[in-house]
Amino acid sequence: MSNQRYTEGLNRLEQIDGAQGQKVIDSLSKVCPDLARYIIEFPFGDIYARPGLDLRTRELITLAALTAMGNCQPQLKVHVHGALNVGCSATEITETILQMAVYAGFPATLNGMFQAEEVLIERGLLNANGA
Amino acid sequence: MSNQRYTEGLNRLEQIDGAQGQKVIDSLSKVCPDLARYIIEFPFGDIYARPGLDLRTRELITLAALTAMGNCQPQLKVHVHGALNVGCSATEITETILQMAVYAGFPATLNGMFQAEEVLIERGLLNANGA
Amino acid sequence: MSNQRYTEGLNRLEQIDGAQGQKVIDSLSKVCPDLARYIIEFPFGDIYARPGLDLRTRELITLAALTAMGNCQPQLKVHVHGALNVGCSATEITETILQMAVYAGFPATLNGMFQAEEVLIERGLLNANGA
Amino acid sequence: MSNQRYTEGLNRLEQIDGAQGQKVIDSLSKVCPDLARYIIEFPFGDIYARPGLDLRTRELITLAALTAMGNCQPQLKVHVHGALNVGCSATEITETILQMAVYAGFPATLNGMFQAEEVLIERGLLNANGA
Amino acid sequence: MSNQRYTEGLNRLEQIDGAQGQKVIDSLSKVCPDLARYIIEFPFGDIYARPGLDLRTRELITLAALTAMGNCQPQLKVHVHGALNVGCSATEITETILQMAVYAGFPATLNGMFQAEEVLIERGLLNANGA
Amino acid sequence: MSNQRYTEGLNRLEQIDGAQGQKVIDSLSKVCPDLARYIIEFPFGDIYARPGLDLRTRELITLAALTAMGNCQPQLKVHVHGALNVGCSATEITETILQMAVYAGFPATLNGMFQAEEVLIERGLLNANGA
Repeated sequence: MSNQRYTEGLNRLEQIDGAQGQKVIDSLSKVCPDLARYIIEFPFGDIYARPGLDLRTRELITLAALTAMGNCQPQLKVHVHGALNVGCSATEITETILQMAVYAGFPATLNGMFQAEEVLIERGLLNANGA
Repeated sequence: MSNQRYTEGLNRLEQIDGAQGQKVIDSLSKVCPDLARYIIEFPFGDIYARPGLDLRTRELITLAALTAMGNCQPQLKVHVHGALNVGCSATEITETILQMAVYAGFPATLNGMFQAEEVLIERGLLNANGA
Repeated sequence: MSNQRYTEGLNRLEQIDGAQGQKVIDSLSKVCPDLARYIIEFPFGDIYARPGLDLRTRELITLAALTAMGNCQPQLKVHVHGALNVGCSATEITETILQMAVYAGFPATLNGMFQAEEVLIERGLLNANGA
Repeated sequence: MSNQRYTEGLNRLEQIDGAQGQKVIDSLSKVCPDLARYIIEFPFGDIYARPGLDLRTRELITLAALTAMGNCQPQLKVHVHGALNVGCSATEITETILQMAVYAGFPATLNGMFQAEEVLIERGLLNANGA
Repeated sequence: MSNQRYTEGLNRLEQIDGAQGQKVIDSLSKVCPDLARYIIEFPFGDIYARPGLDLRTRELITLAALTAMGNCQPQLKVHVHGALNVGCSATEITETILQMAVYAGFPATLNGMFQAEEVLIERGLLNANGA
Repeated sequence: MSNQRYTEGLNRLEQIDGAQGQKVIDSLSKVCPDLARYIIEFPFGDIYARPGLDLRTRELITLAALTAMGNCQPQLKVHVHGALNVGCSATEITETILQMAVYAGFPATLNGMFQAEEVLIERGLLNANGA
């Protein structure tokens, strides 16, 4: 299991998602550890490791997709953390989610925004005066 | 911010969604107040204000869409309230959700129906003998 | 196969969809005739036959769902015909599709509107001055 | 209501879903008992009763669809029970959900896998060494 | 690029999809050859190579997912070919697609069935008397 | 109709989508000109005009969403043009679409990539050696 893709993926997962990513991996250790391995190898070892887009942009396009698809709330929260971890601002995150109102409608945007809010509050990035 | 679309939209939001709508608006005041403003201006100030369909029909087509899309449970509850507020009967609401079994499948219909049931019970419109 | 649900469903299918509905049924005669039978029995024999919503409203909520789901273009066209057949106006149809921009986003609405336009032109209900 | 489809469907529902299925039916008794009847008659009386696919395969394709659609978590849990009840192994269930990563992406698979895990733990089929 | 996953995946792709799979790979050679490589490595090298489900079942659950998701018509056709190539019968294929009416609604099932019909006709497996 | 939002939106639409955008607007002039107006006012006058994200990032998150949603092929092509018009490279576009394999699965990515390819070829940005 300790191939190069796995090692690189694990490093990148830690860089991007920190404790959140490890929690997902751990949560799969009983029911399907191979799914955890594939998540490390393919998204993180193959895709996020690619040149051509910086990690900040990669996180923002992920937030866009997860908000627009609308049925991935836990993953959206993980990636709001991830976006902040790689240097995105709270404003870049909320602007990305807001723009999805155009393409996926207001309910998807609202539900995404509330997920983002929880993370921003948790990390002390949101107070009564907004992001 | 106090343009005509905003004022008209706010009036209509209150007419349709009452306290539920205001709660959504308030909930956005920290994370993205502009999203609240756009919701007032575009859906309520532009779309629901249009002639061509009465508000009862507008609420029923919204319930159909939210049930069929299947990932907008909080919005579905808000619009079951809205449908009742503008004069739809409990039967019209449950018939609309039921018909979605044909187009979006039984799981989407079941999940929508349970959201409707919570609102109907909350408003005293459902007892042991059904809607 | 000639049970009561089937007979009632077939009558209703003809009433609502006319030649369009029969074309769908015929198109299934080789690959899966039972699917044609289920379409007659469940949507048309069971659901559209129910009291509680008139056929005009039933067609509008169907247009809403098909537009919002966004991957049912052939069915959307059939039901624009159906909506017109049971007495919906071109305006009611386009208003229903337009409102989906709020819930499912502008692309779903655009794609739905272009399907409606084809049917409205085909039936002589749209000219250079609009619906 | 006691037609042949209903009787056959009810028997099959009990065979497949046991107490879980009856709970869904009961939960609809107030808000829309006809939806419960349609679920018994169409999915269980018509579809699951068909020859051409054994019940084990029917449950696995249902798990695939519910995982891929991603917004049917309660139904997914019911059908993990159903799959086990008709003889699918824990491995067949997790393999089916895992494969959806290819077609519907990792978030849908993760969310499906966690639903399956809850059922597998509940039924004593998962311990610290995995399925 | 000639790692073990790639070699195994390519073999399996040929076994399952034959000329259809190679056509997809070739079609990516200009715009994004790495996407072709990932398709060979992850779905075919990692997932389809796993024990726990036979290839016939793997193809049927894929048909279920693609039909239910409803926006993957070209891939659905490729996998109807694939299902036939690994030994599924025409009936198993149409039964799988038919069952999706329960979970994803009739439009998704209709659109999937028409894709299957094209492949079945192309391969001489469907005549005027049905599958 | 010549309010400030409309004027600003029209300017921005031309900047981003050029002839493609105008073609969509013109195509709505008969069936629903108000939909054209709303597209100019809300997405382009309100959202794309906002600070907080540059236009290049706004186009990439749009490509991500449209690829992931999977049922917006015409809009995806318009926005591949848009992304190029505001300065995104072919590589940034294909990387964005590629990454969606992780979140929305390979079929959505494949279908998105083929749309992008058509635009890249049309604009002379793709030859036999790739993007």
